[in-house]
Order: sequence, then structure tokens, then C-alpha cells
Amino acid sequence: MNLWGKFIDAQAELRKIYHAIAVLSWDQQTYMPKLGTEARAESLAYLEKLAHSRLISEEFSQLIKDLEAVQDDETRGPIYRAARRNYESSAKIPSDLIEESARANSLAIAAWQEAKLKEDFSLFEKQLEKQFELALKKAEALGYEDEPYDALLGVFEPGMKTKDVDEIFSQLKEALMPLLKEVVANQGDKPNLFNQDFSKQGQWDLGIKALKEMGFDFDSGRQDYSAHPFTIGLDPKDVRITTQINERTFPASLFSSLHEGGHALYEQGIPSEWRHLAVGRAASLAVHESQSRLWENIVGRSKEYLLHLWPTMIELFPKQLQDVEFDLFYQAVNWVNPSLIRVDADEVTYNLHIFVRFELERDVLCGRLKVKDLPDAWNEKIKQYLGLEVPSPSKGLLQDIHWSLGSIGYFPTYALGNIMASQFYAKAELDLPNLQYDIAEGKLITLREWLRENIHKKGSTLIPLELVKDVTGKELSVEPYIIYLKNKYLR
Amino acid sequence: MNLWGKFIDAQAELRKIYHAIAVLSWDQQTYMPKLGTEARAESLAYLEKLAHSRLISEEFSQLIKDLEAVQDDETRGPIYRAARRNYESSAKIPSDLIEESARANSLAIAAWQEAKLKEDFSLFEKQLEKQFELALKKAEALGYEDEPYDALLGVFEPGMKTKDVDEIFSQLKEALMPLLKEVVANQGDKPNLFNQDFSKQGQWDLGIKALKEMGFDFDSGRQDYSAHPFTIGLDPKDVRITTQINERTFPASLFSSLHEGGHALYEQGIPSEWRHLAVGRAASLAVHESQSRLWENIVGRSKEYLLHLWPTMIELFPKQLQDVEFDLFYQAVNWVNPSLIRVDADEVTYNLHIFVRFELERDVLCGRLKVKDLPDAWNEKIKQYLGLEVPSPSKGLLQDIHWSLGSIGYFPTYALGNIMASQFYAKAELDLPNLQYDIAEGKLITLREWLRENIHKKGSTLIPLELVKDVTGKELSVEPYIIYLKNKYLR
Repeated sequence: MNLWGKFIDAQAELRKIYHAIAVLSWDQQTYMPKLGTEARAESLAYLEKLAHSRLISEEFSQLIKDLEAVQDDETRGPIYRAARRNYESSAKIPSDLIEESARANSLAIAAWQEAKLKEDFSLFEKQLEKQFELALKKAEALGYEDEPYDALLGVFEPGMKTKDVDEIFSQLKEALMPLLKEVVANQGDKPNLFNQDFSKQGQWDLGIKALKEMGFDFDSGRQDYSAHPFTIGLDPKDVRITTQINERTFPASLFSSLHEGGHALYEQGIPSEWRHLAVGRAASLAVHESQSRLWENIVGRSKEYLLHLWPTMIELFPKQLQDVEFDLFYQAVNWVNPSLIRVDADEVTYNLHIFVRFELERDVLCGRLKVKDLPDAWNEKIKQYLGLEVPSPSKGLLQDIHWSLGSIGYFPTYALGNIMASQFYAKAELDLPNLQYDIAEGKLITLREWLRENIHKKGSTLIPLELVKDVTGKELSVEPYIIYLKNKYLR
Repeated sequence: MNLWGKFIDAQAELRKIYHAIAVLSWDQQTYMPKLGTEARAESLAYLEKLAHSRLISEEFSQLIKDLEAVQDDETRGPIYRAARRNYESSAKIPSDLIEESARANSLAIAAWQEAKLKEDFSLFEKQLEKQFELALKKAEALGYEDEPYDALLGVFEPGMKTKDVDEIFSQLKEALMPLLKEVVANQGDKPNLFNQDFSKQGQWDLGIKALKEMGFDFDSGRQDYSAHPFTIGLDPKDVRITTQINERTFPASLFSSLHEGGHALYEQGIPSEWRHLAVGRAASLAVHESQSRLWENIVGRSKEYLLHLWPTMIELFPKQLQDVEFDLFYQAVNWVNPSLIRVDADEVTYNLHIFVRFELERDVLCGRLKVKDLPDAWNEKIKQYLGLEVPSPSKGLLQDIHWSLGSIGYFPTYALGNIMASQFYAKAELDLPNLQYDIAEGKLITLREWLRENIHKKGSTLIPLELVKDVTGKELSVEPYIIYLKNKYLR
């Protein structure tokens, strides 16, 4: 077998292990019975360590070196570079640390779920301390220039630094704070439409309709329930999304399906022939989030698409909606309102939730803040950015699953995703002059095809900042996002 | 680390891989989207090969040899012997054949499902030929004295030969044929009670009630839907069963839940401290089947238990059942009637279905029959044993999933399970004089505890024929089964 064939085989072996890991993780969060935790944690830890040992093996390292020569080949170059990036960020982390993290994650998820249910941070504190301790170890292993956070961020956003994020977030903050003040001042009274029960089945059906319209392929994926919605790609032909439906929070589950559906379209849109390769993965988490945010907010919360769904909603919930004016409904679902739960936040305040998390996790990592002081620090920041008191941990720092998954340095990617989404969408509008008319008719496939062509099918041939330039012709900028928000909320 | 510690670790590694395989298989048959087949087949084949390579590794083989010395230790002896049996039956099969089989299974399942749906055997023929070809290769690798079937049977039933099965089946046939004739002659007209719709939800609820009463632990397991009901133990604390509910076949799903529930109690009853060890597995498939048959038939179809469930059934299906006499209902669910579908067969004719499959697969393996001639041969045997014409493949040889899973030599274990079930139950009745009164009150836990104590918690410390002797004080015999059938159907 030639060198290239060996390289492809080594990547395929990795994918087969990651496929199993993904199925086990999906099951753990959807259907696994309560006492299955221990055996699952052991098996996941074993598989993570196995994958890592393959990735950092002598043979693979030698292959990477031997393949330097093909870097310039037009087809193989990007495939090779993606594998090399993946190799370099992983090979530096010792196998024991990988295995320890996998085990810690399984235990932390269980502790987090219990702590959230019982409104008792102390049940999670020990596991969370462990997660930050492991994150710091990981950062040290990966190496960094300015601060440990750089190393963790770089795993999610190749080529991006903490100081870059800081600068972008500063620009965003500067525009958002006065915008928020102005919007809230001019908003009038909050429409009170949703303070009643909307059946789970009806909400499920509405979500499925939206997923079908946006072109989610149900032969290559499915939607289930879980405590916290997520997307996991087992393969481009097997992409799982989950949702959570609360009868009192209509239409949150519609936006959740659109959000996870956006992630899923990206996974389903990556070329199948790359399924075994590192290049057959998303470019970064922020790019991934740009897809979910684009579908959830820019499309999903638009007047055009909501007007298209309106007759279906009335049909599903006649009692609750038949006497409601559409304009009032539109106002209600786009109501700007500082609130406690990130996933329910409106487009204007959403990023403030991210600033809170980014600043806190950065402080803990730098040693400026202790885990046991996180609840108080959290509550203070929420007061500062959103002007609210946190009544209980489940509405405070226990609301998100991320830290229990060891995903520290992950939250900024959400705000970066918002920014990229607007920049991508502005370009799509230029390329597709009829886009808003198509959306008004529920013909979302036009947009899916544009995204597939311009973003999805590129996999990770480019790093995120290169991809933004390649797609839009411009550097990453907060400007289109600010324009989008001003157009939508100040007009 | 000492020798024993190394041995335990090697076994634990195997369990972690098998755990992943089990989750992937469960998902494949319950929730996996249609196009997920290819990636799943690859990952499963990889994991099967990995497990096998660990099992047959030099280190493990050396460990087994080095541990000969501890064979006589009372605690460690049985643990060691179970591992050795497992090792010996697997180590002889080449890794390539294991991987080829895993891949063939995934493809054959998909082909079987399509062929069954489209009533077209030709869509499955090629995959089935491949399965028999692989089974023969496996038999050759394992070695046998009289015929290839011995080798395959021995994997499922350690210590049992094809000629033993032949003899037991002959005795059974000799008693069953006249019994069947007599029962049918004295039965009168068939009660026509179920020719109407029974809601899926109602049937699901009834099955769940039965599972709860028999002591299925829902914190350590769950029930889902699949095309063909099955049980899979991912761990003693995570045991999955599935069911299939048809609105027109009440109360088949109740008996399916009791059947799979019986398998599941066995898996949940194996000591948790053995979860990583070969000894922490069921003694054999026939012993496993004895548990499912015991719960499905001896308990589930008894007058006592059905009388206990009767008020619940009427509550769930008032329209369909409120005017029905219980005695007529009891007669209807125990109606003896030669029919086409094995899983729906009554207790008297059930074994005839097994004789058909046993004889056919044995003939194909010996080269006396070609796969392409199987449909005709099947239909002839059904005519011979049951006196029926097969109208379409889904009601003929496409009804069972087993051959598509490569499970050849497996069917006899069902009839052996029936025989063992009666022998075990006869002993339980001796030990528990109030057993039938408990069952009449729905107190099934008494029986579960007896089974757990006498069978489940022994894992595979003993081979099946030893276990039967150990539990009942007697050699395996068809006599208790014949007595049970005569008592129930001729009184």
C-alpha cells in the first residue's frame, strides 16, 4: 500500500472509533437508563483513549512527516493540512489526560443533572473543580503565548486568540449596549400571548415541519428528546438532533429545532467521500454556530418565515392563537428582554450571556476566581450585564451542560457564530436576490443549497478566518451583524 | 500487577468493547436512520475485529496458560474456566472472518428487511448464501467430530452435540404429534375475540405493567420498539428490550414483553461484580430461552396470571373486552392451532417450527440443500409438520431475523429452552408451595427471586447441562415439559 493509502486508512480507523463514541454519547443523553452511567463512562473512556492512542501513534506521526511532500497538491493538500491540524492539537495531550477527561465528563454530567434538579450547586462543585483542573492541564499540554485560555479556544477556533475575541467582543459591546437601551425604551408593553399550555405533540409537529422545509434529510438523521438540545453527526448520512419541549414556553421548541437543524444541515452537507477524513469535519465551532444561528434567528425569527408558518400554527393551536394578531405574535417572539436563560434569550441580549461565561471561565483558568465562588460571581455579572437577580442555580450557572462536558473555552464560539451568520447571510442576499420571497413561501431549499455550496461542502479545507474571507470576500467583521440588528429592531 | 489482576484487566477491556458493540447494535435496530447503515457496518466490523484481536492476543493466551494453576481455587476456578471456554471457542476463528461476518450481518439485516417488506426472497438470497458460507467457514475453523452443525451449536450450547439435540427432539416429536392431534380434536370452535383494533398505547401500558410486576428494573433498563423484538444486555445495570405492537394481534405484545422481560431479568440478575468477566454472562442461549419461555408461557399464559391481569385489560379495552367471558379469553390465548409465524405459535405447535428450521439449516450446512431452494424446502416442511400452505415469504422463511444476523445453529436453543423452562419451573413449584397463589395476586417477585438465586446469579460458572443438574438435581429431560403440556391442554 502506498503512503497516501496508509494515511487514508489511518484516518478511517479513527472515524470508526469516533462513530462509536458518538453513538454512545447520543444514547447517554437520550435513552440510557439511570443506572447505566458507570458502564457507559468506562466504555467511553476506553474508546477515547483508544482513538487518542491511534492519533498519536508512531506510525501516524511518521505518516504525517512522510506526507509533507504532498502539501502543495491541490486536492490532497487541504486533506493533509486538516489531518495535520487535528494531529497537532491532539498529539500534545497525554493519553492519560484524555482518558481521565472522558471519565470525568460522564460523572460530571450525572452530577450536573442532579444538582440542577435539586437546585444545589454543591452537588456539582467537586466535579466542576475537576473539569477546570483538567482544562488547565490540557492548556499547559497544548501550550500558549499569553494565557491558558488561548490554548483551549484554539482547539475550537483554529487560528484565533483570546485577545482577538476580546477585541471583537469590545466592538460588539460598544454597539450593543446603546442599541439595547434604545430598543427597550421604544418597545412599549410586552404582549402576553404564551402564558398558556401548548401541547407537546403540536410543538413537535411544528418543529418537524420546519426541519422538512429547511431540507433536513430524515433518511440521514432523526430528532429525539434530551435534557439539553444538541446535534451530533455520527456520519454525514446519520446526523442526530434533539429537542426539549415545555408546554409553557411556546414557541421555544420551534427555534430549538431550527437551531439544531442548522447544525445538522452542515453535518449532512459535508461530502460523503470525506466521511473518514479530518477534512470532512466542520471548519470550527463558530462556523457551526453560524449555521444554527442563521436558521434559528435570521430565518426562523424573520417576519417572512413566521408569516409562512402562521396558518400552520393556528391550525395546531386554534384555541391559543386564533384570536391573536400576527404582528403581535411577531413582536412577542422577537421581544427584547433581559432574561436569565441563555438559550431563551433574544437576539440583542444573547451575547451578554456569552460575555458573562467567557469572562468567568477565563478568570477561573487564570486563577483569579475559585470554583466555589462561581455562583456569586455569576450572579454579580448577570446583575451587571442584564440587571437581573438570579433566583436559583438552575436559572443561573447550572443552566448549561457545557462545563460538565469539559467544554471550557467553548462559549465565545456562540457569539462569534452570531457575527459570522450575519456576514454569511448578507452575502447570500447579494447572491440570491429572491431569497426573502422564497423564505416567505417556505422554500428554504434555495438557502440550504447556497450554504451547502459555499460553506458545508468545503469541510475544513480552510480555517475559519480563511473561510469567512473565501465566502464573503471580506475579513471577519461585526458590522453586518450590527446592521442586521439595527435594521430589525430599530426600524 | 499480579497475574490475576492482569487477567481481570484483559477481560475488562473486552467488556468495554462489547459494551460499545451492544449499544451500536441496539441503536441499529431501534432508532438508526435508513442511510446510517454503511457507517454503522464499518464501525461494528472494526469493533468486532478489535475485540477478537484482544481475545486472541499473545498476552491473553499466555495469561490463560499461566493461570492453569488457579483452576482449583473455589472462587477463581469457575471465573477462569468461563474465560477459557470463551477464549477457546473464539480464538480458533480468524480475525478476518470475524470482521467479514460483522460486515455481512449489517448488510444482510438491511437486505432482509427490504426483502420482507417487498415479499421478495431474491433480494435477500445473495446475502443469505454469504451467511451460510461464512457459517461453514466458522464451523471448519472451530472443528467438529460428526458434522459442521456441531461446531456452531457448541458455541451457543457448550457441551451439547447435534446428535443429542436430534435424540431430544425425537422424544419430543414422539410425544407432541399425538398430543397435538388429541388437543385439536377436542378443542371445539375457535373463539373469535381479537378480530378488532386494540390501541398501541393500551397494549404498551399492559406490557409495562407486566414488566413492573415481574420485577424488571427500569432504572437498569428500558423497552423500545423494533422490527423484531430482542433483548440486549449492555451491562447488568443497562438491559434493553424491544417490542413490536400490532393493533390487530392483541395480546401478542403482552407475551412479547413477558418473553423479553424474562431474558432481561436474567441479564439484570447476574452479579454486578462480574460485569467485566466472561463468567458474568448467561450460561447458554437455551438457559436464556428457558427464562423467557418460563415467563411468557408458564407464567404469562397461566390461568392464574391472566385472571390477575383481566380487570386491567378490561379497563384498557372496555369496548373490546367488557362483554367477554374470561374462560373464553383464556381459551383464545391458549388456542392450539397450527399456524405460519413462529413467534405467534402456541405452546404445542411452537417446537414444530423449530424442527423445520433446525432440519433446513443443518441440510444447507451439510450441502444437502442449496440456499436458492430454501423457499420451496421451507414451504414443504411447513406442509409436512403443520399442514399449511405458505402464502408469501414474509410468512415463510423471511419471518425471522436470525439468519440475517448469521445466527445459524441457534434455533434449537428455543426448543431446548422450552424443555429446561418446565424442568426449572417444576423445581420452583416444589421449593415454593404458594407459588401459584402468588402469581394469582400478581406477586411475581417471589419467582424472580427464586430464579435469581438458583440460576441468574450463577452466571456461567456451570455449563448448561451441569446447571440443570445443579438446580433440579436431575439430568436434562423432556418429561416435565410433556407433563406440563398434558396437564394444561388435556385436562
